[in-house]
Amino acid sequence: MVSAPYLHDVTACFAERIGEGGLTKDAYARLLHGCGPALEQLRRARADGALPFLTLPSRRDDLGPLATLAARYRGAFDDVVVLGTGGSSLGGQAIAALADRGFGPPVGSPRVHFLDNVDPDTFQALFAAVDPARTGVFAISKSGGTAETLCQLAVVIDRLRAALGEDALKRHVAVMTEPKDSPLSRIAERFSLPHIDHDPGLGGRFSVLSTGMLPALLLGLDTAALRTGAAAVLEQALEAKDAAGAAPAVGAAIQVGLANERMVSQSVLMPYCDRLFWFARWYRQLWAESLGKEGNGTTPVDALGTVDQHSQLQLYLDGPADKLFTLVDAGMAEAGRPVDPDILDHPETGYLQGRTMGELFTAESRATAETLIGYGRPVRQIRVERLDEGTLGALFMHFMLETAIAAHLMGVNAYDQPAVEDGKRLTRRYLQGEGVS
Amino acid sequence: MVSAPYLHDVTACFAERIGEGGLTKDAYARLLHGCGPALEQLRRARADGALPFLTLPSRRDDLGPLATLAARYRGAFDDVVVLGTGGSSLGGQAIAALADRGFGPPVGSPRVHFLDNVDPDTFQALFAAVDPARTGVFAISKSGGTAETLCQLAVVIDRLRAALGEDALKRHVAVMTEPKDSPLSRIAERFSLPHIDHDPGLGGRFSVLSTGMLPALLLGLDTAALRTGAAAVLEQALEAKDAAGAAPAVGAAIQVGLANERMVSQSVLMPYCDRLFWFARWYRQLWAESLGKEGNGTTPVDALGTVDQHSQLQLYLDGPADKLFTLVDAGMAEAGRPVDPDILDHPETGYLQGRTMGELFTAESRATAETLIGYGRPVRQIRVERLDEGTLGALFMHFMLETAIAAHLMGVNAYDQPAVEDGKRLTRRYLQGEGVS
Repeated sequence: MVSAPYLHDVTACFAERIGEGGLTKDAYARLLHGCGPALEQLRRARADGALPFLTLPSRRDDLGPLATLAARYRGAFDDVVVLGTGGSSLGGQAIAALADRGFGPPVGSPRVHFLDNVDPDTFQALFAAVDPARTGVFAISKSGGTAETLCQLAVVIDRLRAALGEDALKRHVAVMTEPKDSPLSRIAERFSLPHIDHDPGLGGRFSVLSTGMLPALLLGLDTAALRTGAAAVLEQALEAKDAAGAAPAVGAAIQVGLANERMVSQSVLMPYCDRLFWFARWYRQLWAESLGKEGNGTTPVDALGTVDQHSQLQLYLDGPADKLFTLVDAGMAEAGRPVDPDILDHPETGYLQGRTMGELFTAESRATAETLIGYGRPVRQIRVERLDEGTLGALFMHFMLETAIAAHLMGVNAYDQPAVEDGKRLTRRYLQGEGVS
Repeated sequence: MVSAPYLHDVTACFAERIGEGGLTKDAYARLLHGCGPALEQLRRARADGALPFLTLPSRRDDLGPLATLAARYRGAFDDVVVLGTGGSSLGGQAIAALADRGFGPPVGSPRVHFLDNVDPDTFQALFAAVDPARTGVFAISKSGGTAETLCQLAVVIDRLRAALGEDALKRHVAVMTEPKDSPLSRIAERFSLPHIDHDPGLGGRFSVLSTGMLPALLLGLDTAALRTGAAAVLEQALEAKDAAGAAPAVGAAIQVGLANERMVSQSVLMPYCDRLFWFARWYRQLWAESLGKEGNGTTPVDALGTVDQHSQLQLYLDGPADKLFTLVDAGMAEAGRPVDPDILDHPETGYLQGRTMGELFTAESRATAETLIGYGRPVRQIRVERLDEGTLGALFMHFMLETAIAAHLMGVNAYDQPAVEDGKRLTRRYLQGEGVS
């Protein structure tokens, strides 16, 4: 048995620790019991390949074509535009944040821009900022029929063709989509664009270890380490001797238990780490779209420590008791130089003198957890020793498994999203000028 | 009487339109009646100056020193770092998004970086990316005692001093804080830094028209237009002959009514406009910190159309009926070139051919609103003809007033945040090595 590369502490989710806002051990035991069949189902799906997000962590064969494309893009381009939305974009953004903290990419990497919307103003700004001759494009749509992605790509191809000629498109644009006829694969064919296959069994919000690989490679990140980190969590969870030994099952039981027994309607994911801002946005889709069905589901809320102490904490502490808090720490207590007492010498701030920024960061995380607990709010704490590709991969897999198991406990299908089709139909009718019937 | 520079449509919040998930007209009338005293209180506060966010829109005298500083920074620096957190940062970020869509600032403006956290990894990336000789700093803390801002500034001064010498600090660093003794004002004094006064009566989350002005000026935005837009909304709301004629009162009555009568616990703000992403984050603080008291308050949720159709919409439509949706449209139907049918010629996508990206954007907004309504979810629609400084200023004022009035209806003080003090005390104790008692 391998050990998971993170600590997962749920003690402050129980009534015996935080009082009536917490889960009783009885309710927890019942739910944990229900996780057994969910884990068994996942084991079978891994064995028979029914859920590719469970087999992807141990694969490497699919990385070859992506590495070739990434190497060419890194050599040829200053800017790479990733087109796509939802699950085609959020995983890549979560990974890219490891390498680009908002001050540009590492030396040798292009700037990677994720365009996940159809705001014409943003595209105008993009076109004003980049040199077409030094710009690459990667369009991702599983189905190949996503309206936003097709519109984005049509507009971008129009621009590139006008600037560089049609023949240049095959060097500047590539797509990732299922190997079947679709509007996107037709565009790829029409302009001889490289076409990377999207696994038809891999739903967007479970696709990060596939759709996130090109951005990772562009930014010089270690894709094998991302998958190895995910594989370790998968292995540990599925080989655990019981559900109590599988952190994702424990997390699912806590989440569903608090929702059922304590009217917890919101699940706040609050990392103390800027690089996990987009990870929390990725989680937000995973949890919402997998579970929000037939009146079920809780609302995932992405937060960021310490920033949201100055924005949301008042509500978290003294507003309605309707939230579970998951705080994530990434072990940065040692980082930074000590604050120079010659600069900050006011009597009120003695506590900061000689302390590093990392110590302040870590103390605030700890203080926020303790304060929430003091107010009787359920708090889960996750700790990784250091955020890197391996631990990020581990966190991805933890939450994908937790979500899949929670869906099983709620009795919903984690892998579909039937309600969003209505809006798509209406959009098409509006654009066809049919009005609302 | 002036008319407000936006449309505010709440018809789809009522039971007669959407069924049992909507507010009854009786409950609404009662709440609207309760808005009368709230509006009267705001009128008095504007007259006697008790709430500076109500008098700021018509002031211009405070802009002089900011304009002088901004002009010097624009001339001298390629990068300007704004230090501060919560209300000292979010308003500025919401304004800056008007000018920088993520592809850099307008010609003639420096890059403006908002550092609102104490993540040492982010500061390391900052220092690696900028040239100290070409970098300016603006540190904002109302009290002058915010631990995060002080730690940020101490670390940045340490770096700049090492690179440029102590004498250079007064040209590279300026602060905005209350005119009183504090750790921050002491630093300003110690290094002869320019000190812009922060109005002691202006709470952080109501300070956007003050703390957001330097970022606006750095990016070449029109600060007078921001304030004029806010003034128009203020004027219209406070001069309306009754609460039904004041959009912020209508909004407050809807929000509080749905919370009280329909168990709505979450208020989703979903603009269809990338430039309003940070506006929604700004709103998130305003609403949460003003109302989350003594068990009151609803959770503000920032969303973005169309992106969150591919992330949150499944939950919004088919999850629990616990949300009010405010969709904001910024009139972009005309923008963009038509999609070329030569590029996108698949039979499935006929509806996109010849349409602009702006038409798709607008059709999706309309379709999402109609779909939510079809599922019986309360939807409010706000429309501005065009997003610019004037309409952004209007939206700021609308939501500040709506929040103040909602606090009155809930019986809480909108202007304090007592619960967050506990965590601050604990942080200091951890850093002083006292442990948890």
